[in-house]
Amino acid sequence: MNWSVYFGRRLSQVSPRRSHSVCFQRFVPSPSWILKAWETPEAEILAVGGLDAVVFLRIILFSLRIFSVAAFMGIFLVLPVNYHGQEMHQDRIQSESLEVFTIGNVKLGSKWLWAHCLALYIISFTACLLLYFEYNSIANMRLAHIRTSLPNPRHFSVLVRAIPWSPEESYSDSLKKVFKKYHGANYLGHQMVYHRGTVQKLLTETRKLCKMISSDKVRDRLNILQCTLCSSTSDSFRVLSDEPESMNGKSPSREREISSNAKETPAAFVFFKTRYAADIAANVILSTNPMSWVTNYAPEPHDVYWSNLSIPFGQLWLRKIITLLAAIVFMFLFLIPVTFVQGLTQLDQLQYSLPFLRGILKEKYMNQLVTGYLPSVILLLFLYIVPPTMMFFAVIEGSISRSGRKRSACHKILYFTIWNVFFVNILSGSVLRQLDALSTPKEIPTQLARAVPAQATFFMTYVLTSGCASLSSELMQPMVLIWNWFKRVILRQKDDMVPYSFPYHTEVPRVLLLGFIGFIFSVLAPLIVLLLLVYFFLAYLVYRNQILNVYITKYESGGLLWPTVHKTLVFSLVFMQITALCVFGLKNSKSAVSFTIPLVVCTMLFNEYCRQRFYPIFKNTSAQILIEMDQEDEQSERMEQIHQDLQKAYNQITLKSQDLHKPAQLSRPTPTRSDEGRIGPERDQGS
Amino acid sequence: MNWSVYFGRRLSQVSPRRSHSVCFQRFVPSPSWILKAWETPEAEILAVGGLDAVVFLRIILFSLRIFSVAAFMGIFLVLPVNYHGQEMHQDRIQSESLEVFTIGNVKLGSKWLWAHCLALYIISFTACLLLYFEYNSIANMRLAHIRTSLPNPRHFSVLVRAIPWSPEESYSDSLKKVFKKYHGANYLGHQMVYHRGTVQKLLTETRKLCKMISSDKVRDRLNILQCTLCSSTSDSFRVLSDEPESMNGKSPSREREISSNAKETPAAFVFFKTRYAADIAANVILSTNPMSWVTNYAPEPHDVYWSNLSIPFGQLWLRKIITLLAAIVFMFLFLIPVTFVQGLTQLDQLQYSLPFLRGILKEKYMNQLVTGYLPSVILLLFLYIVPPTMMFFAVIEGSISRSGRKRSACHKILYFTIWNVFFVNILSGSVLRQLDALSTPKEIPTQLARAVPAQATFFMTYVLTSGCASLSSELMQPMVLIWNWFKRVILRQKDDMVPYSFPYHTEVPRVLLLGFIGFIFSVLAPLIVLLLLVYFFLAYLVYRNQILNVYITKYESGGLLWPTVHKTLVFSLVFMQITALCVFGLKNSKSAVSFTIPLVVCTMLFNEYCRQRFYPIFKNTSAQILIEMDQEDEQSERMEQIHQDLQKAYNQITLKSQDLHKPAQLSRPTPTRSDEGRIGPERDQGS
Repeated sequence: MNWSVYFGRRLSQVSPRRSHSVCFQRFVPSPSWILKAWETPEAEILAVGGLDAVVFLRIILFSLRIFSVAAFMGIFLVLPVNYHGQEMHQDRIQSESLEVFTIGNVKLGSKWLWAHCLALYIISFTACLLLYFEYNSIANMRLAHIRTSLPNPRHFSVLVRAIPWSPEESYSDSLKKVFKKYHGANYLGHQMVYHRGTVQKLLTETRKLCKMISSDKVRDRLNILQCTLCSSTSDSFRVLSDEPESMNGKSPSREREISSNAKETPAAFVFFKTRYAADIAANVILSTNPMSWVTNYAPEPHDVYWSNLSIPFGQLWLRKIITLLAAIVFMFLFLIPVTFVQGLTQLDQLQYSLPFLRGILKEKYMNQLVTGYLPSVILLLFLYIVPPTMMFFAVIEGSISRSGRKRSACHKILYFTIWNVFFVNILSGSVLRQLDALSTPKEIPTQLARAVPAQATFFMTYVLTSGCASLSSELMQPMVLIWNWFKRVILRQKDDMVPYSFPYHTEVPRVLLLGFIGFIFSVLAPLIVLLLLVYFFLAYLVYRNQILNVYITKYESGGLLWPTVHKTLVFSLVFMQITALCVFGLKNSKSAVSFTIPLVVCTMLFNEYCRQRFYPIFKNTSAQILIEMDQEDEQSERMEQIHQDLQKAYNQITLKSQDLHKPAQLSRPTPTRSDEGRIGPERDQGS
Repeated sequence: MNWSVYFGRRLSQVSPRRSHSVCFQRFVPSPSWILKAWETPEAEILAVGGLDAVVFLRIILFSLRIFSVAAFMGIFLVLPVNYHGQEMHQDRIQSESLEVFTIGNVKLGSKWLWAHCLALYIISFTACLLLYFEYNSIANMRLAHIRTSLPNPRHFSVLVRAIPWSPEESYSDSLKKVFKKYHGANYLGHQMVYHRGTVQKLLTETRKLCKMISSDKVRDRLNILQCTLCSSTSDSFRVLSDEPESMNGKSPSREREISSNAKETPAAFVFFKTRYAADIAANVILSTNPMSWVTNYAPEPHDVYWSNLSIPFGQLWLRKIITLLAAIVFMFLFLIPVTFVQGLTQLDQLQYSLPFLRGILKEKYMNQLVTGYLPSVILLLFLYIVPPTMMFFAVIEGSISRSGRKRSACHKILYFTIWNVFFVNILSGSVLRQLDALSTPKEIPTQLARAVPAQATFFMTYVLTSGCASLSSELMQPMVLIWNWFKRVILRQKDDMVPYSFPYHTEVPRVLLLGFIGFIFSVLAPLIVLLLLVYFFLAYLVYRNQILNVYITKYESGGLLWPTVHKTLVFSLVFMQITALCVFGLKNSKSAVSFTIPLVVCTMLFNEYCRQRFYPIFKNTSAQILIEMDQEDEQSERMEQIHQDLQKAYNQITLKSQDLHKPAQLSRPTPTRSDEGRIGPERDQGS
């Protein structure tokens, strides 16, 4: 019954007719998925999950590698030094437990701090080297991904927004005139974007018609009928190109009628004859007014977020500012539950504010439970409302593509998580009484140096609870399972589940936060690193399985996540160094402090170098690749076919109706050549 | 004798042969220049000084306009309120003098603060309106400037840097191969950049040869000879284009010989057949490695800073970071003289630290002199070393053009001036004993609110001394005068002075700083505004005269200064509002505070809107204009001529030798068509 939850991707690849007869051997609980996840080569992951999935797994691989080095340094260099730091403490190990393994146990002005300094150097240099190679290899993979991909409509298309309104002619006409004038040789055609309401209305009317004609029993006939209707509707929105064949529509009079009813927005997809021409059009400013005729790279057809395309371009900057402010306000409002949580870690504080708990907390078991696990659990529960909120902000912001929306939400969740989970816990966790911690910047280094090692225990439990909870919930998919059960048992719907695409916006920040915690404590309290190694190993297996079996790849950003990941990892590195610097300062070790400062500078310079060297590859496509691809296609005479397919690629009706009809197979357009280029399951959905 | 100092531009326009016979009537001291400066229409300024001069004068005009409004509001609204603020003070006017006119005289929680709030609103709205219209009109002027300019070689050229080294072929060959492959249809030719040493050596050899042949007496013959030599040398560096005529050099064997001797750098100017093609090449990323084949818009031929072109591209990011850090360190080192200066304004403090002065300071006259004028004078003297230092930083940074270097220096000087003159005086002027003012951010608003009105007197004298000193020194040009006298009397050189180009990098920050001071005090202590009005009026006359008579326009950035100016003015506005906010807070007027907050938000949104609306015009040229210009030239069949001239435009030898030979007329290339397009005096220099 629940196989659609755990094998969504595989199910979507199999024809729906045969699904009941196929025996899913893998459905019985067996450990074979672990072997499968472990053995699958990266090339297969790339073919199945796309470049984004590979990039995500690379984050985990990088973490595994660097934390192996950190664990080695920690166990053989830092831990012994910490343990032998203050000899008087050695007999109290039982009671003090984990505290002796942190840097807090090292004497003031100890000569042994060079060990920490050395560990810091080795971890930083290894991390920078690994990061450089990762960035390099992912940049190359991105280039190869673009170069070897089959013709993709997005490379030939440009999204034009803010077409100026004129009383004489429609948006479509003025666009045609301008692009014929300035890009005459390369302009192929265009596809206007219509208002959401219009498209919606047409779709519901069509569906109503379908329902009127046929009942549920003759479903097969309905399907055929609906397909015909939808395809005729989509014909009426065919590309308004200058090629003669576009005028040979099936019913020209009806076509014109619907077109005039549909309300055009000042946005359109413009198609060009070559990839290079489209790239130029996207990069060059066309008009003397920078707020009109704005051109952008077009997203992939399935990636387009249609309803945001009709937002007036002039609003976008305002929307961006407003969502930024809203996200910041949300971040600070979230302090309320977080302050409550870190109150729980301080037992005396808790007993003081909630006196009725005193009786329960006297029991040792309850005591450990409350101070150990409860805070993390509450924090995790509160964190569940963050992704939907940030996703909502990303929509308000006006992202034009689904992947862009996810990326924007990912950034917001990342900042949010690091700020709330780490900084607030560190900075106010130990100074609940002085909430004005931030008002004395001079105190921050000392406070940081005191608070970070002290919070090591909290973060060990956080890694345990958060790591276990996230991995097991990722594997079990409880929400989807419950929803599936609800639908089957209560609503009595028999539709298969629509498989989801990978939630990068929640998983990337989660993995990066754990990496951040790992870096901070790798020198100060190396025991956490061992826990993290276990987590990352399990995560590697689990996420590989999920990518192979559960999620589908609807669209692809081509590894655009990596620059963010790189930046966050370098930030973690620098923050690790600065924290260590503060701790060294607190331990009165001037030589260790002066050795660490150049390390911070070098790491920042390394980041800047990587930005210069690799970041432009992720921002623009190089002309060289585009021109070579164009030349190949022209030589093999595929160009003609590509141009024909192009004009059907961005069809608001067909693409939207796919989202609306839950059984996605119904109203699909005939698969075009350009669709064949897409890696992933959509190709198979319709066949 | 000194006319070259005061009429440099006019002299340079007159043929040097005739210069001794022309009678300079305007040289006798007469007020007629004032009339001339006042009457000259903006169109003539534009023709004579270029768009940059007009933009500079627009800053002064804007200041005049907004401070007229501010003065009106100040005199009829704010001053009376301030004056009647605390009645008990009215009989002490004589002793307290100017303090009663500041906001400091208003009672705590006074209802009359609405007057200040209203003045703030009116000034802010007027300023935003004026700024919008200025930005709009300057953006239009920039567009018109590009559209109406005659063919300019920079529009057809692209600077390519970081050509990858290959052992098989020279930079020139690999560039040719790559651009023929990827820009085949539009590539016209290219001009390599040679190492500075090589060019220098060739030039000195040529000049040595000239000296050997002829003595000083037969100067005329030498000139001719040198011209011939240089032009033959420059021929040997002719464009290595694929057009057949480029191979018809005068002496192909010698050409090849010198070419092989000259050491190529991995940088070159590449010429394209159309402006649009060059624009595309500059905007599109060519290679898959973003650190090689880097393309930029080319500067004008006379604007190129040749020696920086040979800096390896990979160094640039590092150089930028290093100069930024150096500038910041310089900024903080400068605190030493500034702290000394603001110590002088506090008499008791001074007497305490320098006891021997106590006798002198008892006299009232000396007392006023020391606290009033001396600090400003010392500060001004120290400020004289700032522009050369910042110019040096801008060179180290690797600017590829002279105007870019000046712009970079201008930014640095601007930040420097505002930080040092204003913030340090305000923040530490009143709290000399607590140097850790910045370590308590919570205190800053209160401190700001207390210190700003208190420092009004200092800034009044600063405006007086700085304004008078800068304007009179601008008019008298003492340094140039002394140098001129030194050269004539001591060195016995009879060369005419080479006229300078306008020092935007020192004058723009100076005018903007005074505007900044004006904005801050326009509500708090409106008397300063009256002084500023006088200053800006005089500045308007003086700078108009200087642009008309003294400076020449060697190169033009096309109004690129304005975005910086706009940003600084908006910053001044916001800072004025925030200071007022703090003062209102200190006066316990909650309603005034809550009325001011939306104003700050609106001003920031206004700035963001302007950035969206106008800034791209200053960053890129729109394709529309370029395509139209190309089409016009093609229709009028000028294109052929332009292409021919283009290949001589960027000639390192000729352009460098012009810099080296002081009388700039000597080794000029025959004026090409493209030079005719330049507005300004170079056109006339050679004729």
